[in-house]
Amino acid sequence: MSEAPVPPRVHVVGTGLIGTSLGLALTRAGGSVTLEDISTTNAALARDLGAGETTSPLGGTQAAEQPELVVVATPPDSTAACVASALERFPDAVVTDVASVKVAVIDVLRERGADLTRFCGSHPMAGRERSGAVAGRHDLFHGRAWVLTPTSETSPAAVELVRTVATSAGAAIVTLDPADHDAAVASVSHVPQLVASLVAARLEHLADSSVALAGQGLRDVTRIAASDPHLWTQILSGNAHAVRDVLASLASDLDGVIRALDALGSDADAPGARGTLARAIAAGNAGHARIPGKHGAAPTAYTTVRVLIPDEPGQLGRLFADVGEIGTNIEEFHLDHGLGQAFGLAEVDVVPGAAASLSEGLEQRGWRLHG
Amino acid sequence: MSEAPVPPRVHVVGTGLIGTSLGLALTRAGGSVTLEDISTTNAALARDLGAGETTSPLGGTQAAEQPELVVVATPPDSTAACVASALERFPDAVVTDVASVKVAVIDVLRERGADLTRFCGSHPMAGRERSGAVAGRHDLFHGRAWVLTPTSETSPAAVELVRTVATSAGAAIVTLDPADHDAAVASVSHVPQLVASLVAARLEHLADSSVALAGQGLRDVTRIAASDPHLWTQILSGNAHAVRDVLASLASDLDGVIRALDALGSDADAPGARGTLARAIAAGNAGHARIPGKHGAAPTAYTTVRVLIPDEPGQLGRLFADVGEIGTNIEEFHLDHGLGQAFGLAEVDVVPGAAASLSEGLEQRGWRLHG
Repeated sequence: MSEAPVPPRVHVVGTGLIGTSLGLALTRAGGSVTLEDISTTNAALARDLGAGETTSPLGGTQAAEQPELVVVATPPDSTAACVASALERFPDAVVTDVASVKVAVIDVLRERGADLTRFCGSHPMAGRERSGAVAGRHDLFHGRAWVLTPTSETSPAAVELVRTVATSAGAAIVTLDPADHDAAVASVSHVPQLVASLVAARLEHLADSSVALAGQGLRDVTRIAASDPHLWTQILSGNAHAVRDVLASLASDLDGVIRALDALGSDADAPGARGTLARAIAAGNAGHARIPGKHGAAPTAYTTVRVLIPDEPGQLGRLFADVGEIGTNIEEFHLDHGLGQAFGLAEVDVVPGAAASLSEGLEQRGWRLHG
Repeated sequence: MSEAPVPPRVHVVGTGLIGTSLGLALTRAGGSVTLEDISTTNAALARDLGAGETTSPLGGTQAAEQPELVVVATPPDSTAACVASALERFPDAVVTDVASVKVAVIDVLRERGADLTRFCGSHPMAGRERSGAVAGRHDLFHGRAWVLTPTSETSPAAVELVRTVATSAGAAIVTLDPADHDAAVASVSHVPQLVASLVAARLEHLADSSVALAGQGLRDVTRIAASDPHLWTQILSGNAHAVRDVLASLASDLDGVIRALDALGSDADAPGARGTLARAIAAGNAGHARIPGKHGAAPTAYTTVRVLIPDEPGQLGRLFADVGEIGTNIEEFHLDHGLGQAFGLAEVDVVPGAAASLSEGLEQRGWRLHG
């Protein structure tokens, strides 16, 4: 964005992580932001952090002008009610929300007969493990997708206004039908979260000597299993239909695998059983290959250069200084630590054309490559 | 290991990745290694790479002395037969195998009335995405766990011999009952693999616009879904009982979640449903917390410092050079690329006591921190 326009006047309802971060981003971009929160402490904190001016009924400055856009950034289970209220309280403003589930909000608004021409739901694909105003960052949305989910009722002007604000915050715009959005996040976010939790839960009562065999694969699969149960209960229950459909399809494949293992358990040569297992792994190959690389590009097959890293301060610095000198751009980087080992194995992913020169350059500089 | 003893005379059956790597490691440690493979090309290749001398019946040097230890490193589905044959062919030697499933091998040997006093199964927790002798590395086992799975019949001398060889190859020894081993790898390796594949398979027929919303969470959960279906079919079918038990427990929890989502789909206030969802995520928290940190230590809570990285060659090098200058040791490092963004967000995990000085040092050097 070489020439970002000054953002419209925005009123933020709910000064948690997302609301505060948006206020910080828009204020920094020269925009005028007002803030409210059911907790006056939260609102005052967001104001003190520089996210905008407060308009809480219990004190603070009432904005001189009505907002052009109201952004409802409350927890998922109060989003619909707050949007309905905002549409009534600000009859000339466009309203958006930032909840991670979209259809449920629209259903409630439609039931209530709300003015849907002025509502354009949205979902910034940004978050942190920490929450609250104090975790807010002006650059939280930089380069992240911000999904707009207009309905057939939404006016083009409303869509445009939300697009302008999201762009001002540094986000990349994606437009999806609300139901398509919910189905998409069920597959790419909600089901992976739930399944990571279910896999991690198998470890809860495992013997120490068994858990000790955990490797990088398990670590990766279960990383997001550390997420907040309270937030995820709201998200999953808000997207119950779409998550259920994806889980049911997964459960059906899982049942097939269990039946195949049962068959192999009683007859090591059970016809068809190995075919079921191989197809399950192969379908995973095919799905995995569809995940886009960085920059929203088509899936990219990077070449991995593996480098042994002594476990001493400064060794990674030396590696990256050398990579910089060689002039290779790193696409992905992963550091693998095995059980009890005295050093790390760094996996450096580069575009295929760059692997040979990187390997040669690193070996010349004394690095031990590992394949 | 400050004073590694000279390894015993070892005969390797099967010169794939593991067999060749072991030959390379033991040769390098001053040991005497002989090699055989059903493919004379494979055996000759491993020999040419420096893994030992060949003893193929079709040519090569017959070892002057009988081996003290025979290591069967054939594919999982021929392991038991090769071990049985090795016990007969080398009546004075101890025999081990390196298959990732242990009980199935012992069952076959017991059926055949093999001499189990001279057999100590084992499983080096090391591997690569590539296979075959050419992918072999002398340092493949460095710092990795190598699980020994003796039975009550196994003689103490046999256990000691396998321990000595695994230690000579640089591995860290873990001893487990064979059934406990199989149950452990079912939970920490086989089920995570299968479930990652099942999650990734959901993406196979998803619209491009939906797959485009994929974030780091999905990438982590599905990374190992790129694994080889042929190998994994052998592993899963070889550990059918244990994998089945863990999957059945997971499927039962999954069914509970699906029923809760069903209930929420027809009644947004369904009693008990949110409790089921929250418990599933919370159990994942508890299981995740048990995964050990690196170096086999107890779980460590690292502090994450997030740094914005411009997407230009050399920037990571500059970062790591600065980290080296500040003197902080990096425990884990992860580079996160969002959709369409022009830069990366690096997550640098350090021990909690080091986070403040690292953050301060990086900011002094002009880095933009992100939380």
